[in-house]
Amino acid sequence: MISNRDDVTRMILSAKVAKDIKWRDVAEKVGMSKEWTTAACLGQMTFDKPQAETVGELFGLPDEAVAWLQITPYKGSLPTAIPTDPLIYRWYEIVNVYGTTIKELIHEEFGDGIMSAIDFSMDIQREEDPKGDRVNITLSGKFLPYQSY
Amino acid sequence: MISNRDDVTRMILSAKVAKDIKWRDVAEKVGMSKEWTTAACLGQMTFDKPQAETVGELFGLPDEAVAWLQITPYKGSLPTAIPTDPLIYRWYEIVNVYGTTIKELIHEEFGDGIMSAIDFSMDIQREEDPKGDRVNITLSGKFLPYQSY
Amino acid sequence: MISNRDDVTRMILSAKVAKDIKWRDVAEKVGMSKEWTTAACLGQMTFDKPQAETVGELFGLPDEAVAWLQITPYKGSLPTAIPTDPLIYRWYEIVNVYGTTIKELIHEEFGDGIMSAIDFSMDIQREEDPKGDRVNITLSGKFLPYQSY
Amino acid sequence: MISNRDDVTRMILSAKVAKDIKWRDVAEKVGMSKEWTTAACLGQMTFDKPQAETVGELFGLPDEAVAWLQITPYKGSLPTAIPTDPLIYRWYEIVNVYGTTIKELIHEEFGDGIMSAIDFSMDIQREEDPKGDRVNITLSGKFLPYQSY
Amino acid sequence: MISNRDDVTRMILSAKVAKDIKWRDVAEKVGMSKEWTTAACLGQMTFDKPQAETVGELFGLPDEAVAWLQITPYKGSLPTAIPTDPLIYRWYEIVNVYGTTIKELIHEEFGDGIMSAIDFSMDIQREEDPKGDRVNITLSGKFLPYQSY
Amino acid sequence: MISNRDDVTRMILSAKVAKDIKWRDVAEKVGMSKEWTTAACLGQMTFDKPQAETVGELFGLPDEAVAWLQITPYKGSLPTAIPTDPLIYRWYEIVNVYGTTIKELIHEEFGDGIMSAIDFSMDIQREEDPKGDRVNITLSGKFLPYQSY
Amino acid sequence: MISNRDDVTRMILSAKVAKDIKWRDVAEKVGMSKEWTTAACLGQMTFDKPQAETVGELFGLPDEAVAWLQITPYKGSLPTAIPTDPLIYRWYEIVNVYGTTIKELIHEEFGDGIMSAIDFSMDIQREEDPKGDRVNITLSGKFLPYQSY
Amino acid sequence: MISNRDDVTRMILSAKVAKDIKWRDVAEKVGMSKEWTTAACLGQMTFDKPQAETVGELFGLPDEAVAWLQITPYKGSLPTAIPTDPLIYRWYEIVNVYGTTIKELIHEEFGDGIMSAIDFSMDIQREEDPKGDRVNITLSGKFLPYQSY
Amino acid sequence: MISNRDDVTRMILSAKVAKDIKWRDVAEKVGMSKEWTTAACLGQMTFDKPQAETVGELFGLPDEAVAWLQITPYKGSLPTAIPTDPLIYRWYEIVNVYGTTIKELIHEEFGDGIMSAIDFSMDIQREEDPKGDRVNITLSGKFLPYQSY
Amino acid sequence: MISNRDDVTRMILSAKVAKDIKWRDVAEKVGMSKEWTTAACLGQMTFDKPQAETVGELFGLPDEAVAWLQITPYKGSLPTAIPTDPLIYRWYEIVNVYGTTIKELIHEEFGDGIMSAIDFSMDIQREEDPKGDRVNITLSGKFLPYQSY
Repeated sequence: MISNRDDVTRMILSAKVAKDIKWRDVAEKVGMSKEWTTAACLGQMTFDKPQAETVGELFGLPDEAVAWLQITPYKGSLPTAIPTDPLIYRWYEIVNVYGTTIKELIHEEFGDGIMSAIDFSMDIQREEDPKGDRVNITLSGKFLPYQSY
Repeated sequence: MISNRDDVTRMILSAKVAKDIKWRDVAEKVGMSKEWTTAACLGQMTFDKPQAETVGELFGLPDEAVAWLQITPYKGSLPTAIPTDPLIYRWYEIVNVYGTTIKELIHEEFGDGIMSAIDFSMDIQREEDPKGDRVNITLSGKFLPYQSY
Repeated sequence: MISNRDDVTRMILSAKVAKDIKWRDVAEKVGMSKEWTTAACLGQMTFDKPQAETVGELFGLPDEAVAWLQITPYKGSLPTAIPTDPLIYRWYEIVNVYGTTIKELIHEEFGDGIMSAIDFSMDIQREEDPKGDRVNITLSGKFLPYQSY
Repeated sequence: MISNRDDVTRMILSAKVAKDIKWRDVAEKVGMSKEWTTAACLGQMTFDKPQAETVGELFGLPDEAVAWLQITPYKGSLPTAIPTDPLIYRWYEIVNVYGTTIKELIHEEFGDGIMSAIDFSMDIQREEDPKGDRVNITLSGKFLPYQSY
Repeated sequence: MISNRDDVTRMILSAKVAKDIKWRDVAEKVGMSKEWTTAACLGQMTFDKPQAETVGELFGLPDEAVAWLQITPYKGSLPTAIPTDPLIYRWYEIVNVYGTTIKELIHEEFGDGIMSAIDFSMDIQREEDPKGDRVNITLSGKFLPYQSY
Repeated sequence: MISNRDDVTRMILSAKVAKDIKWRDVAEKVGMSKEWTTAACLGQMTFDKPQAETVGELFGLPDEAVAWLQITPYKGSLPTAIPTDPLIYRWYEIVNVYGTTIKELIHEEFGDGIMSAIDFSMDIQREEDPKGDRVNITLSGKFLPYQSY
Repeated sequence: MISNRDDVTRMILSAKVAKDIKWRDVAEKVGMSKEWTTAACLGQMTFDKPQAETVGELFGLPDEAVAWLQITPYKGSLPTAIPTDPLIYRWYEIVNVYGTTIKELIHEEFGDGIMSAIDFSMDIQREEDPKGDRVNITLSGKFLPYQSY
Repeated sequence: MISNRDDVTRMILSAKVAKDIKWRDVAEKVGMSKEWTTAACLGQMTFDKPQAETVGELFGLPDEAVAWLQITPYKGSLPTAIPTDPLIYRWYEIVNVYGTTIKELIHEEFGDGIMSAIDFSMDIQREEDPKGDRVNITLSGKFLPYQSY
Repeated sequence: MISNRDDVTRMILSAKVAKDIKWRDVAEKVGMSKEWTTAACLGQMTFDKPQAETVGELFGLPDEAVAWLQITPYKGSLPTAIPTDPLIYRWYEIVNVYGTTIKELIHEEFGDGIMSAIDFSMDIQREEDPKGDRVNITLSGKFLPYQSY
Repeated sequence: MISNRDDVTRMILSAKVAKDIKWRDVAEKVGMSKEWTTAACLGQMTFDKPQAETVGELFGLPDEAVAWLQITPYKGSLPTAIPTDPLIYRWYEIVNVYGTTIKELIHEEFGDGIMSAIDFSMDIQREEDPKGDRVNITLSGKFLPYQSY
């Protein structure tokens, strides 16, 4: 019995290692970006029916799991409020160190409002650099002004 | 008596509102990017002597404060572990929703290691869009591979 | 020296009691709804210049405070993550008891996405009822679909 | 062995996906609003016997589960004190940003007391809007004055 | 400048010790029970005008403080979520040890609902006992049934 | 294998629903108050041998479980430090709102010390009331003076 | 204005260093054990009038502070739930490592109940030892059996 | 498969109840104090080979469990940072109320350093007393002076 | 089904005790330091293929587990944010007591930046000492200067 | 009025910046290592009289502050349980990632016990390295075996 999306995520992760599947190959088969596809496989986004079937086939999932992939999940991928994993923590640290800076500069440019995390996309690229390659990540979110009424 | 950098940050914020100063103008005078300069004014980075003097003059700070601006601060700009401010929370949410995705894709591309939050830069841009302007932020961090020994 | 919006909120609350001012009267003078105006006076929204001057006059605030009212504040009005005040706790309880219900029904109707808390308005009304008057609150938020890319 | 209501909720969620059942159809069969029915299926409300039997039939539950549906549950539907799911977090954010506003305005109108979360109902509606459809939610709770004695 | 009820509570506590005032005498002068009066003096209930003036006179409070006594306070009297004071902790312990028992027995008697903490009164009495006097406390709260709709 | 009292509590709760047993009937058979008996069945008190056997028979427990009922349990019945269930939360709220009041009044009457939560009893009664029935709960605890030495 | 016992504790600690006073001398003058006297000076116990006056004279406290020493304090001497100070942490560690052991052995000897922390005394002694002197602390608390009713 | 010491502790507790074994009898067979032996059985200390075999025989443990008893465990016996069980909480309370007192008196006697929780022993005794028997616990820890260098 | 690295860590720990394997022997076979090898076996580092096969053979792991050893794990080895185990807590204590000292001295020597925990190695050695042997641990991390831009 | 060591630490930090004093110069004057001296100046260690007087002179402290420097402080230098400052966090991360490794290897070498954080010293050195200089830190703590009794 599958009673939440986490059960499906575990199946996917287990099959991914056993079958040595790459996220970029999944993304290509699904026809979406590698960022969105990975997030969806990890239980954070909702697949439509053809996408779910593709994913189900790739990872060898049962029909019940394929049905769950089309259900909006309870989001949040981290086991603790402050992440312990060093790679993910660096992002938490950026929010902690630069959070007020980001706030000040967006407000200076746009006024009161937020950068959407829903109407949002992300792109992760490798930049070759002789002093050590860099990870470049671009986040793009619609600015949503606070409504006054 | 100034006994930590927070005292100086409060002076800067108070003067900024009273004198209606813009961060981009501070950055221009300091000769650094608006992102780094704002973070430094908010107590997260260390100014060198000429930069500190420029900042001191702009905000009308006493000499003692100018000396503190050249001292490496205790970093972390948020009052709570999970930020309450909606704009900053959206970033925490991105880390929570996309954290494992970012981890998977960087490891798939680079192997085990992290994206540095120290050898790091950030660029915030407005993208005009008829459906609503977007905030585009590019984060660039050196990839640091885990050392095995 | 005023170094954050909380200082201004404290001035407003102090003057409100001393001068026995009503929020609805403030709202009327400011020309906005009582909900938005109160939130703004409590340090959660940003006034424009004429609004800030009206508020400054009503509460007898110094110029420096009036300037702060036009600065986007660090939002979040509660002293603890789980509110202790019974009236506000009931709202936390509604989120806790009905949170998954709201999620299920919005997703059933709209698909994956959220109800905006930014493009959002609130209306509080008294409904007379012989068994005891009721508080009726209508929340209206734009549905924002998750972007897939 | 079923030893708490959560076990039953998991059965319902699993069957809902497997059988592709809609909450509105459950509500119609049960004869109550979609809001109350969903909350009850998610383990937050108590069904009476005929309601429980209807639900049991719809989701194919064993008799033991049908008995549990008639037992008052230990309420609270969220896995963490601050919800990580973006849709539910927006509600937590509304409480955080507007909590003191709601408190001030209810006290100004009604005096000291609370809006009940027990003698309470909720109605979720879609409002069509050319700029993007809106979620409108009306909460209605009896005002309960603090007793002095 | 008084900007919240805690400032007034501190004034009352300071005056109480300096002038050696008893809560029961305050209650008698105010004309309410000692339980309600003490809670109100400690910043948890709202006085009406004559009561506030009586309290103000007894403790020698300024007019501004007397005005604050008539404002509904932000309630919650404890500095930590789990109280450290042994006397108050014992109550937290009772809730922790007997919480599910109280829940089971009220539901068995009344069905689903709660015992109100608003339409509520409390009475503290000393019971003489040769094996050691006892504290007897009676709590009386209206039963509020959960509304189904 | 039963390795803690919680396993037994789960068995009791499961049997209670399946067999539709009332706590008051258990109490009558055990020969103790309904409050103590329920707390003991919920894993908070220790039964003696005949009581444990009666309980075991009523709920159809295996011998191993009956042995566990006679072992002093690790007490504490709530899954979170601040209870999410509305009925139990109201008690937490009473402690939070009235905690300092209870402390002041007991100290005024008895001096420094506590009201015991061990040499303690509780009685829950329904009081009929035309405006809505009330839950009356009397707590009786021995006063224990702080020893000075 | 002194509004709580912490203010008095701070005065005592400040005077103790300035005047180089020893706790054992305070205890001798007060006529109680060094353990109780120190706890009382640190704001955890209640002095009677002559004791308070002796303490007031020794530390040079104003009358208002002497009055506060006779008021039952809000107890709890640590700034964080888990102490950071190494000496005090070792005690927290003992509770954490040996807590269940103490519980098992007291229950095996006495049955269900607790060791009182109120009818309680403590004695701290130095034991000379060639391998390094030892701190010997004896805790003595009345056993309080759980009442069944 | 046993993968940590907790699995073994659960086996011991289960067997202890089923076979009605007393800790003092275990201690006698193992040839160590009842305090150390109980702590070791509860997963906090490390047995040597003969001790582990004795324990294994007494509780009927498999060889794999006997091997685990000789492995240094991850220590800490409590499920929450602040214990909910009343008997263990009283110890936490003693640390909270008397923590600073213990610190002051040890420093006054020994200078800066700590009382070891490693080179440490504990002795629990019953003291008969006509006013109610007492639990006397003696803790003995080597004083370790802070090294300056 | 193995769905995360923790499952593999549990297998390794179970086999280690059952087969009485030493970490230093594992390290020698793997051809890396004992520090890195142990961390990797405990689920904190990533093995390459030959290393994983060696480990798999030593501990008798299934192929699926050997595949998981080559996947970058979600790092963080402690069950609580503040460790309860005394040996590990001492390290947390060093960070707490000496944290600001380390920060000051590194900044005095190197300027603003950090000591890397990624380009990092650790060496644990026993130093014989007549007063008691010592644990000497050398940590070596690349200094990473904060980038200004 | 100085009522705790933190007040003195703030004075030292303020004077250090104003007078541009280096920790290594303080250490030289005090005649101790830079690590111990800095920790002591930051309120974590206890100075003897001549050391305190030297420090007082260097930083221009009043006599009262010099007296406080000789009092054992309440230790713990960090404002939050999990440090937000990136340099200090890396140490917390090392404890989190390598904590169980350190534990396993010390136990393998020494048996059950801990590495002392009291009979402890630390040495911070710069190692020049063409690929980037390294911070090398050696921690030396006496091994303390767990006592069995």
